[in-house]
Amino acid sequence: PGKKVLIVYAHQEPKSFNGSLLKIAVEELTKQGCSVTVSDLYAMQFEPRATRNDIVGHLHNSKEFNYNMETWEAYKRGDLSQDLVEEQKKVQEADLLIFQFPLFWFSMPAILKGWMDRVLVQGFAYDLSKSYDCGLLQNKLSLFSFTTGGTKEKYAKRGDVRYLLWPMQHGIMHFCGVKVLEPHICYAPEHVSEEKRKEMLTAWTQRLKTLWKEEPINCSPEWYFK
Amino acid sequence: PGKKVLIVYAHQEPKSFNGSLLKIAVEELTKQGCSVTVSDLYAMQFEPRATRNDIVGHLHNSKEFNYNMETWEAYKRGDLSQDLVEEQKKVQEADLLIFQFPLFWFSMPAILKGWMDRVLVQGFAYDLSKSYDCGLLQNKLSLFSFTTGGTKEKYAKRGDVRYLLWPMQHGIMHFCGVKVLEPHICYAPEHVSEEKRKEMLTAWTQRLKTLWKEEPINCSPEWYFK
Repeated sequence: PGKKVLIVYAHQEPKSFNGSLLKIAVEELTKQGCSVTVSDLYAMQFEPRATRNDIVGHLHNSKEFNYNMETWEAYKRGDLSQDLVEEQKKVQEADLLIFQFPLFWFSMPAILKGWMDRVLVQGFAYDLSKSYDCGLLQNKLSLFSFTTGGTKEKYAKRGDVRYLLWPMQHGIMHFCGVKVLEPHICYAPEHVSEEKRKEMLTAWTQRLKTLWKEEPINCSPEWYFK
Repeated sequence: PGKKVLIVYAHQEPKSFNGSLLKIAVEELTKQGCSVTVSDLYAMQFEPRATRNDIVGHLHNSKEFNYNMETWEAYKRGDLSQDLVEEQKKVQEADLLIFQFPLFWFSMPAILKGWMDRVLVQGFAYDLSKSYDCGLLQNKLSLFSFTTGGTKEKYAKRGDVRYLLWPMQHGIMHFCGVKVLEPHICYAPEHVSEEKRKEMLTAWTQRLKTLWKEEPINCSPEWYFK
């Protein structure tokens, strides 16, 4: 109770299975007394492209545009574009970040990758020697909750599903100092029975009930690749 | 000679190190007699978001928007948006796809991820039982050429850089039936001497000279995770 949760949601259709998972999370966490904020990326028409528009006013080096350097400088000057300032404020306040999305090509949809690229700027999320256990987003939890097109068997056939979690969980969240809870994967909801879909939704509600008692995973290569 | 190459390029600044790598590839491959096409994503203001706008005219199911299903149907009807049709034509004609980009968060910049999400639609790049060795983009090669912010040592310290290649090389290219050449990685060009940068550019030119003699990697879990 009293915990703050930011759900970054990337699906175009409220009636989708992802939409149902979002609705469940908002309802269940609100019921627990959490304060829940949703960044509904498609509804916000969130900009995924990392461009000069992310810096208000003049550039540090207008002769050769370097996105990372310019956003780092702009962050220090308080000159990032308003949409980024707002997302950073939500992240700063959150105790838990939930990413809810359909897996696209073994990763996040571009609109959500753009949120990572643009919101987690140097100076805000990490810094020169402040990464991993020293990352700037300490004392926060994250959880990747996603649906897949293929079945569990299909993913298992060509390696472990954990392989594709490495760039997202370790490369982004762990790098920023955010602890990572077990991912929540709903396999192929479009290809199972209505009954099975209901079971998956119930399982998500059940997991959320005891979420705050969970221990983060040990985000080391061993967890991913054994 | 006579080979067709598509370079999908994702950097905002022509004067950048990525810009130099692009220029070298265009020059060297043209010199070899290849026909080279460049998709300069930022210059094209390429749209990374997967939305209803990708389907011209009416939807197959307007009550519940399903991006994958709608683009699949639109592909079959010839109703994909013009920018996607043009990119698909370039892919179809190419013998080699080169992706040139700065690594953002252990992966592609969102604008390039959006190219993958939107261009490689079902029916065009893969189909129900047509994936991996049966993927629809047969007889093509791909090569991921990217720069990093961190040094080689920094990447090696927390696992192998190959771990992050899995979703891109295996999850996308291999899935579509495209063969994968060894990646070309330039580590931390912003943090090395001018001399070292020149060496890296020369190495890229040299590699391109014998590129067509290279054997694709064996894109199995063993290559990535040993």
